Amino acid sequence: MTDNLSIERVDKNNFDDFFSLIVKLAEFENLTPPDEKAKIRMKKHATQDNPYYEAYIGKLDGKTIGYTVFFMTYSSFLGKPTLYLEDLFIVEEHRKKGYGKTIFNFLFKEAKKRECGRMEWSALDWNTPAINFYEGLGAKKLKEWIYFRLTEDKIEKLAE
Amino acid sequence: MTDNLSIERVDKNNFDDFFSLIVKLAEFENLTPPDEKAKIRMKKHATQDNPYYEAYIGKLDGKTIGYTVFFMTYSSFLGKPTLYLEDLFIVEEHRKKGYGKTIFNFLFKEAKKRECGRMEWSALDWNTPAINFYEGLGAKKLKEWIYFRLTEDKIEKLAE
Repeated sequence: MTDNLSIERVDKNNFDDFFSLIVKLAEFENLTPPDEKAKIRMKKHATQDNPYYEAYIGKLDGKTIGYTVFFMTYSSFLGKPTLYLEDLFIVEEHRKKGYGKTIFNFLFKEAKKRECGRMEWSALDWNTPAINFYEGLGAKKLKEWIYFRLTEDKIEKLAE
Repeated sequence: MTDNLSIERVDKNNFDDFFSLIVKLAEFENLTPPDEKAKIRMKKHATQDNPYYEAYIGKLDGKTIGYTVFFMTYSSFLGKPTLYLEDLFIVEEHRKKGYGKTIFNFLFKEAKKRECGRMEWSALDWNTPAINFYEGLGAKKLKEWIYFRLTEDKIEKLAE
């Protein structure tokens, strides 16, 4: 059923298809989507030597219906890279058809190929369907850890 | 008071000093420290072209008293890299003297230099002194996000 999804690395040619879906994901998550300047940076960051992230789109009969963004982090206790999944998104009309699982299968193979000790990602706490799916895969919640974020305005001041 | 801490990038020459402190941090966090095979991988991963992570040690009168490990992640909504702080550790006898703050100051400058949109890190939920320090810097807890981890044994099976 999902065998006809083709997965393509994002490059300069298909970047606009990828970016239009990022905007849709931001809307779904009630977050501010990237603006035009961010779009220009993101194109550079995905396609430069030593790219900051890797992005792939899923295409069905030539139409882009989903995407994933990931990069490598690192566990200093395992001494192995972690595949960190930043985004995985399927457009609404193609959900519940197994395409998300097809992209996950692609990610499992990438993690194995790169000798990763872990895969990690996060979900918003109200996104119950996603959470159930992740637990069904065998992923464990990192309950004992608290995550912190410092924004650019604060970094600028602290760096003075 | 902390001006005499010199911060050095970890390379092949000072790797053993760095690694001995990782073992101490694991003991402090009640986690399993990396084994001999992990040590060999970590040395390679820190010193190869396009290293998987960056490590720095803090030295006081020639003695290594702390270290930090970080790498770049990415925000696909900001279109900017994030400095992700994996470890920051000061040996017990030199805590509460401001050396942790000295290393944080170094990280703020690195994040600014690399045009990061964010810095992120995590803490164990029982580590109240660390949590208070992070909130004092202006860092916010990512309360609405749940983090998931899939371990290598499960990835191997799912990748089949």
